[in-house]
Amino acid sequence: MLIREIRITPVAFRDPPLLNATGVHEPWALRGIVEVISDEGITGLGETYGDLSHLDRLCAAARELVGVEVHGHHAQYARVAASVGTDVFTDQHGLTGAGSNQKTVDAVFSPFEVACLDIRAKAAGVRVADLLGGPVRQEVPYSAYLFYKWAGHPGGTEDRFGQALDPEGIVAQARMLVGEYGFESVKLKGGVLPPDDEIDTVLALRDAFPGLPLRLDPNVAWTPQTSVRVGKALDGVLEYLEDPTPDIEGMAEVAAQVSMPLATNMCVVTHEHLPPAIARRAVGVLLTDHHYWGGLLRSTQVAALCETFGLELSMHSNTHLGISLAAMTHLAAATPNLTHACDTHTPWQDGQDVIAPGSLRISGGAVALPDGPGLGIELDRDALAVLHEQYRTCGVRRRDDTGYMCRFEPGFRPRRRCW
Amino acid sequence: MLIREIRITPVAFRDPPLLNATGVHEPWALRGIVEVISDEGITGLGETYGDLSHLDRLCAAARELVGVEVHGHHAQYARVAASVGTDVFTDQHGLTGAGSNQKTVDAVFSPFEVACLDIRAKAAGVRVADLLGGPVRQEVPYSAYLFYKWAGHPGGTEDRFGQALDPEGIVAQARMLVGEYGFESVKLKGGVLPPDDEIDTVLALRDAFPGLPLRLDPNVAWTPQTSVRVGKALDGVLEYLEDPTPDIEGMAEVAAQVSMPLATNMCVVTHEHLPPAIARRAVGVLLTDHHYWGGLLRSTQVAALCETFGLELSMHSNTHLGISLAAMTHLAAATPNLTHACDTHTPWQDGQDVIAPGSLRISGGAVALPDGPGLGIELDRDALAVLHEQYRTCGVRRRDDTGYMCRFEPGFRPRRRCW
Ligand SMILES: [Mg+2]
Ligand SMILES: [Mg+2]
Repeated sequence: MLIREIRITPVAFRDPPLLNATGVHEPWALRGIVEVISDEGITGLGETYGDLSHLDRLCAAARELVGVEVHGHHAQYARVAASVGTDVFTDQHGLTGAGSNQKTVDAVFSPFEVACLDIRAKAAGVRVADLLGGPVRQEVPYSAYLFYKWAGHPGGTEDRFGQALDPEGIVAQARMLVGEYGFESVKLKGGVLPPDDEIDTVLALRDAFPGLPLRLDPNVAWTPQTSVRVGKALDGVLEYLEDPTPDIEGMAEVAAQVSMPLATNMCVVTHEHLPPAIARRAVGVLLTDHHYWGGLLRSTQVAALCETFGLELSMHSNTHLGISLAAMTHLAAATPNLTHACDTHTPWQDGQDVIAPGSLRISGGAVALPDGPGLGIELDRDALAVLHEQYRTCGVRRRDDTGYMCRFEPGFRPRRRCW
Repeated sequence: MLIREIRITPVAFRDPPLLNATGVHEPWALRGIVEVISDEGITGLGETYGDLSHLDRLCAAARELVGVEVHGHHAQYARVAASVGTDVFTDQHGLTGAGSNQKTVDAVFSPFEVACLDIRAKAAGVRVADLLGGPVRQEVPYSAYLFYKWAGHPGGTEDRFGQALDPEGIVAQARMLVGEYGFESVKLKGGVLPPDDEIDTVLALRDAFPGLPLRLDPNVAWTPQTSVRVGKALDGVLEYLEDPTPDIEGMAEVAAQVSMPLATNMCVVTHEHLPPAIARRAVGVLLTDHHYWGGLLRSTQVAALCETFGLELSMHSNTHLGISLAAMTHLAAATPNLTHACDTHTPWQDGQDVIAPGSLRISGGAVALPDGPGLGIELDRDALAVLHEQYRTCGVRRRDDTGYMCRFEPGFRPRRRCW
């Protein structure tokens, strides 16, 4: 079964003004929707970043993939690697660590791999999770992903989530998300307020939701010294502390001095980071992300490696739509050692999507594995057309949280190791 | 698609008196042939060890696997692990390192996993290699596997391979095997003669086959000191030196002092050995073996881990038949970083098999990946019946190279770290 055709459709959708260490989310978020069609007429779906330079690389790779065997994982990877060449994509937001050629190849490859697995599973009449070892859980738990945020985008109206710039605002946000979706663990995006304010927010969450696992992710906004101080202040409160400080060396320094495990989606983002991170005991929890770890199969290999080396697993999320949520859910369902609830931005999209509604729903804090076949979702072509038209007209062509923030706070700089 | 039925058939076949550090091969070698039949009537094949205690564990596991989803890799593994419980299988020959519960589970699981992949690939109309990432090579290279040996079994007639107890005998054996099969690399099973005699044999091979990669595997017969001495004597001659001395500590001590990489199928045989072996830089080449690394998919995960940590890969072989050769060939074809020719005992079986002839042939030192579907082989039920009848009557119920040797050399003890 060969790849006959590949379609790549950039889309844009509304995003609230969520704050992080590098700035604030723009009013439009971008994604690239990938359709791979086999010579038997089966279509597989993938979803990835929508930055223009990434779309260009996707298109170049797609040209090389037409005619290749759908099952040819290694052959496809080699073609993608050749098409990427020595290019390095460095995201403008900087929230997933440094760019590298390996990470670029893995990120370009990922949506095609997911789509081919979708085709293969459909052809075999099974779920994508069945091609990844079969589900070990039928419900995949996700965590409430809390953000400090403005009431609305400047110049626009207040969004339904409202302002959250202090402990009370975050607790109210958490009550809304937990109430609507039943989340049973909570993650706070930090790196926005001074560390002591973020400690206060976490403690307020602890008081409001006793017993719920809590996480804090300041996206390397802190020095190792501050990280240790926050870690000690939140001893016994946090399930894990995520990327408090930059780099494997800094993380190792902190890990040796705090009680909770450190998690990362920034200092270990490709295979080359694993040996030094393991040798230095820099992290206790790896947040996988099939979007830049080279797709689902390669993510299962990373999961197996983590099992071997005693690393725990969780899952990272960037702003995404339903194809990614489906892929994440199949992967998580088939990963025995993924024992922490996954991150997802889904609630912030408030129903906007390119897939037909109904197949994926967060309920009781979890997404039930779709029945399949394949990813178990269907593209909604009308919705895709609407979101593509939004892309055409929205004017955003790459994610740039810092640039957008600077429009309102001139002189704002990403908070890297700054506290 | 569910597992409807599982059949396990022990078989025995003639084996020449091949010498190694633990004794000598008995006249009969044992294997267990596994047939898994799906509720759609598709049969998948697996092959494993034939020792009685292993067969008992296979039967116990098989009872737990009936009714389980054919795609349910993780679910099957959990069932097998539960059926094995805390059991530990320690092979009598001791040529694959220490026994452990993990290794026992992985070894019991393996033939069922291979058979289920055979079913899945047949159902999808593809090759097993296509389910492992797709072939990166259409021809899988194997090495000539040389053994010091007696002319024939005591009391029997001389076999067609003849005696090989000195450099001339081994060179003659290599000429025969290379002549018949076209091997382009050569492995000598050592640990049989004093180390200086084995050095002489390797040097004779180097002179007889200039340019052919050479390996020497004494199965931990040497001290670290002797290992270093041999390593220095064969500097520039060996592609790798395999398991010269026991344990990760001993291997690390040798590895630091010799120029060639050390290979192992004895000190790293389950996942728990990988972290310490990597931390100590004990080995440069891992010899995988899907028979005790938990099947083909788990072997691809180990391969990915080796890629991440810069370990090279080769493949280990025990005495086996065609189902194993097919599985090894599919795995090797789909493993990009398997860059050394694989080991195989196939020539020593001299055509004895349970599969229909024609699908697997060593030519030019390589086996062409069978076209499929599945493993691309067919069970020869008449041959299976003959080999099973041989099992019934041969009297051997477990491999015991040492016990057999002691019949002719009373007082013989396995040569572990003895030179
Ligand atoms: Mg993060
Ligand atoms: Mg060996």
